[in-house]
Amino acid sequence: MNLLNPTHDPARRSWIESANRPETDFPIQNLPFGTFERDGVIRTGVAIGEHAVDLRELLDSGLLTPVSDAAFACEAADGGLHRLMSMPPRYASALRAALSDLLKSDAPQRARMQQHADDLLPRIDTLELRLPCEVGDYTDFLTSLHHTERHGRYKGLADPLPPAFKSLPIAYHGRASSLRVSGGEVRRPHGQYRDANGEIVFGPAPALDFELELAAWIGEGNSLTQPIAVDDACAHIFGYSLLNDWSAKSIQWFEQVLGPFLGKSFHSSLSPWIVTSEALAPFRKAPVARAENDPPLMAHLHGVRDQQEGGLHLELYAHLSTQKLRDSGAIATRITHTHLDNLYWTFAQMVAHHTSNGCNLRTGDLLGSGTISGADDAARACITELTNAGRDPLRLPNGETRTALEDGDEIVLTARATKAGAVSIGFGECRGRVAPALAFATHESEKAA
Amino acid sequence: MNLLNPTHDPARRSWIESANRPETDFPIQNLPFGTFERDGVIRTGVAIGEHAVDLRELLDSGLLTPVSDAAFACEAADGGLHRLMSMPPRYASALRAALSDLLKSDAPQRARMQQHADDLLPRIDTLELRLPCEVGDYTDFLTSLHHTERHGRYKGLADPLPPAFKSLPIAYHGRASSLRVSGGEVRRPHGQYRDANGEIVFGPAPALDFELELAAWIGEGNSLTQPIAVDDACAHIFGYSLLNDWSAKSIQWFEQVLGPFLGKSFHSSLSPWIVTSEALAPFRKAPVARAENDPPLMAHLHGVRDQQEGGLHLELYAHLSTQKLRDSGAIATRITHTHLDNLYWTFAQMVAHHTSNGCNLRTGDLLGSGTISGADDAARACITELTNAGRDPLRLPNGETRTALEDGDEIVLTARATKAGAVSIGFGECRGRVAPALAFATHESEKAA
Repeated sequence: MNLLNPTHDPARRSWIESANRPETDFPIQNLPFGTFERDGVIRTGVAIGEHAVDLRELLDSGLLTPVSDAAFACEAADGGLHRLMSMPPRYASALRAALSDLLKSDAPQRARMQQHADDLLPRIDTLELRLPCEVGDYTDFLTSLHHTERHGRYKGLADPLPPAFKSLPIAYHGRASSLRVSGGEVRRPHGQYRDANGEIVFGPAPALDFELELAAWIGEGNSLTQPIAVDDACAHIFGYSLLNDWSAKSIQWFEQVLGPFLGKSFHSSLSPWIVTSEALAPFRKAPVARAENDPPLMAHLHGVRDQQEGGLHLELYAHLSTQKLRDSGAIATRITHTHLDNLYWTFAQMVAHHTSNGCNLRTGDLLGSGTISGADDAARACITELTNAGRDPLRLPNGETRTALEDGDEIVLTARATKAGAVSIGFGECRGRVAPALAFATHESEKAA
Repeated sequence: MNLLNPTHDPARRSWIESANRPETDFPIQNLPFGTFERDGVIRTGVAIGEHAVDLRELLDSGLLTPVSDAAFACEAADGGLHRLMSMPPRYASALRAALSDLLKSDAPQRARMQQHADDLLPRIDTLELRLPCEVGDYTDFLTSLHHTERHGRYKGLADPLPPAFKSLPIAYHGRASSLRVSGGEVRRPHGQYRDANGEIVFGPAPALDFELELAAWIGEGNSLTQPIAVDDACAHIFGYSLLNDWSAKSIQWFEQVLGPFLGKSFHSSLSPWIVTSEALAPFRKAPVARAENDPPLMAHLHGVRDQQEGGLHLELYAHLSTQKLRDSGAIATRITHTHLDNLYWTFAQMVAHHTSNGCNLRTGDLLGSGTISGADDAARACITELTNAGRDPLRLPNGETRTALEDGDEIVLTARATKAGAVSIGFGECRGRVAPALAFATHESEKAA
């Protein structure tokens, strides 16, 4: 399914004009899947320019060939993406091919679709977007060497890189229940932390940070005790979204004995569209080679195909705006520009490692890359790194400084896959604004009051 | 709902004789909920002696008062416990009361029930028991001071107790997908670990261990950003099951940077019945007091009611049998006898801490206590502790020794709540047998071959 096909044809354009603008994230070559609420009903759709094809309306329209894989896929996507994602990749692929044919400039069905555009092709900005899919288990990796080394140095470790880092993709289980779609408020959490005097206190967490990540959505799962081979892993990844792994560093530093817990579980943000593995096929590249003195890659993490095309030509960005910046009409400031090449491990290796002990992945499981920081200063993908752990405050164009996120600060993550000869595709936004901590009701009686 | 009511009456007996035997885990005072498959259909039931009331059959029987809370609860439990567990506790409580009345010795409906016993009251040993409820997020705590201190000492730490231990209940997110109901094989996982020469190798994990835990099932959840106050926490705990947190220590020691991951995610076992918070009401007790020089309990973890009745009179056991022991007709050897008093934190404190940052718990979420080890040698609740990290091998009655679990070894966890004046209730079994590692297919081609 990763082979190029007519849906990737860079010459293909859409009769939906907004899909042909060079800056759009959603040209006809992308066609990412998402979920939204319309008139109180959960629906699924595919983004094209500033619009989304409502898959329920598409199914009812009769535009798909009856009893085809595409029609079966469209029916499976009714009410949520879970079932479609659980099916062999050819179903979503057939639906993608059918949509591409319906939306291309010279599609014979154009007039018929335009006639029903209000129902069939709502503007995205009129939709209440939801999490693309319910997440079963959410796993977060730690695969940027630069992010890991910098944090090790901030902690004053003699060897800033943990011994296991180059032997396996380090990971921990994250909290699935507090994953939210892009756009909402991110409430500053309460927690226990050490204050400036070293006293343990409980209160609104001071050191709030963002972390720029890419996350893979599992399509077909595997059975318990049945590992996924590294070169088969891509077929189990339905697609990718942007992930902001909001972190309350002050909580995390104090609590962390068995890994991150309340320092992260208050909120994690996901972009609303799943850019499919198939849409990203033209942007495949070899991952960055391991250094000569790195330990040899173990057999179960070595895939012939993965070594050839386990990476992606993908640039990722973080933007910050403050209340003052917005009040002055200024646009958000880009604070991070990084590249997926900054990961030491590929997503196929993450899947292979994750299942190497027989652990089962299920449809809708989410695998975060970890903070995608690079060696360059501009490629530091969280405020902790951008400020060298608070030593060098971040300076904004209006003179404001930051060593952590303040209430009202907004982070927007974006990403673009770009390669000469291919039409660039994007991920949409992963946006969140920090809201002040709520008053804390210690006892039920206070809540009732 | 924790107040005592007629369902707790120690004088109450059942017309089902096996429920009146002193050794039964499921007297009429217990009535735990479970899920099973019958003729290919998922059903739910309530255990009574050696039988289970099939709730679907009960609903159809007309034995429940129509349009009552009990009937509504019974209907909600059709096909799975999730919906019933999500409802306010009075519904499950009403169903419990109705069942208790139907099953008591002098129940007028006895003859009618006996007439339909084949459908209504199958023997438990004829049922295919399933996980009681689908788990959304699974959190595992570390709340035994003795377990934590011993492991700190094995690692040679100067201060074996992490600084945060007495300030908050330490926890990490566990893997939900690989939770399995008691009774199956536990496949020895592959993984990376350091061998005796310190070399990093990949292969079947040598140091397999069990961990005896109690796990709380969340009933009604909370909304994101809305913490649960400690004295309200009990109302959010539907009930408890036994948990065996199987651990591949060799994998865990090497991988652990951000907490346990593949060292535990290969399999965790749960007992099939949820013993409700209401059934445990007679066994409530004050938790063990904090030591005088312990740091003061923070306000958000201090509940007036929790300090009075946040503990349970609950004894827990682990039993080991080996292939040789079974071949010789010997019964399993009891290797652990511990008490819930060995937890430094109450479940209400775990819930309050977990949600103190605004994290939302959802119905069906699972909170493990962590290994319930006590100060006594007999109360060490995993093999690592039972053998002082391998230094003092465990000696079995037939002369076999163990420093870790071997293939064919079987662990059975049990627990009983006991208090003078109350009818003792139990949890059923949490059983699992270690199966040899499968051959590892590194590449897809090997799998196909």
